[in-house]
Amino acid sequence: MTNINYQKHYYTGTRAELVAILADTLSEFRFQHVLRVEAKALELAEHFAIADLEKVSVAALVHDYAKERTDDEFKTIIGRKHLDQDMLNWGNYVWHGFVGAEMIHDELAITDEDILNAVRRHTTGAPYMTIYDKLIFMADYIEDGRDFPGVDDCRATTFADLDAGVAWQLKHTLNYLLAKQTPIHPKTVLTYNAFVANNK
Amino acid sequence: MTNINYQKHYYTGTRAELVAILADTLSEFRFQHVLRVEAKALELAEHFAIADLEKVSVAALVHDYAKERTDDEFKTIIGRKHLDQDMLNWGNYVWHGFVGAEMIHDELAITDEDILNAVRRHTTGAPYMTIYDKLIFMADYIEDGRDFPGVDDCRATTFADLDAGVAWQLKHTLNYLLAKQTPIHPKTVLTYNAFVANNK
Repeated sequence: MTNINYQKHYYTGTRAELVAILADTLSEFRFQHVLRVEAKALELAEHFAIADLEKVSVAALVHDYAKERTDDEFKTIIGRKHLDQDMLNWGNYVWHGFVGAEMIHDELAITDEDILNAVRRHTTGAPYMTIYDKLIFMADYIEDGRDFPGVDDCRATTFADLDAGVAWQLKHTLNYLLAKQTPIHPKTVLTYNAFVANNK
Repeated sequence: MTNINYQKHYYTGTRAELVAILADTLSEFRFQHVLRVEAKALELAEHFAIADLEKVSVAALVHDYAKERTDDEFKTIIGRKHLDQDMLNWGNYVWHGFVGAEMIHDELAITDEDILNAVRRHTTGAPYMTIYDKLIFMADYIEDGRDFPGVDDCRATTFADLDAGVAWQLKHTLNYLLAKQTPIHPKTVLTYNAFVANNK
């Protein structure tokens, strides 16, 4: 399944060519994570039978495309593209999604907004998420290399009900960020409100 | 100290006249809370010797002025004054501060922005808070009628270091909201980031 044959031109080359770019530009650790996210996203997509598998594959493969770029590269693009200046108050954790989508657009010539949005939203989520957003958001969290307390419960929840999986992740992430006293992006909270607090 | 003599015209009448309006318009429960908030805010202000006591008194007395208004009254004002339409997604908890300040301005002829901002910010806080914001935010939380696990620790923390008190409250409030799965206002999180996560 992961050797899906690209035919719809979301990406101009073959899947093997896209994978080769990732293998060249990402650390081995991140590259293997990306392949596992693709496998899990496709597994979820086939399970629910609700998404274009080629789009899922491309979105999963590129979701961390920008993760290993330097802070300066992100800041340059935030300025050059006139992105929201509040972006500058955040770091790689937020940038590799929102700003990473710009790099994917410009460097890989991927213009499909479902794919770019799934990348933009894969860290914070969003109050309204497309099926692609949800698949990447969840696959990133529960891919087979992940190991944290409750991960198997989260996997089972997600395969039973994708939205319940999204809610599971948001609850645990917010509790985790609070325990670590890490800055919380307002968008994470808006997503939490939509999927958890206003959806009881 | 709570019979402070108003001389600076933040409010057009005497303190006794302002208190009489509150006694007339608020429930007895809320009226007593408001008097306790004033007492605690003045106690904190004298302890730190860093604020205009008359301004503190007025801000404390009016901070819940709008708390018992109907949802329809708030919605009408949000529309009439062209306030941020996102306000409509929230409820009394958020409205009585942000929209309540408009009612205080219009109905009590209080125009001092330190006072109005302290009202606006007393529920969510703000990343940058004035001394008046902090005094009302904390006095509301630790007034002598409050009783919750840790309240005495919070009182001691606050009298030792006002900003540490603000951080204490934010940490506990966010954990409480998460445990209750209540919607969290993004501004509460921005305040948390400023006083806790980015201030370790």
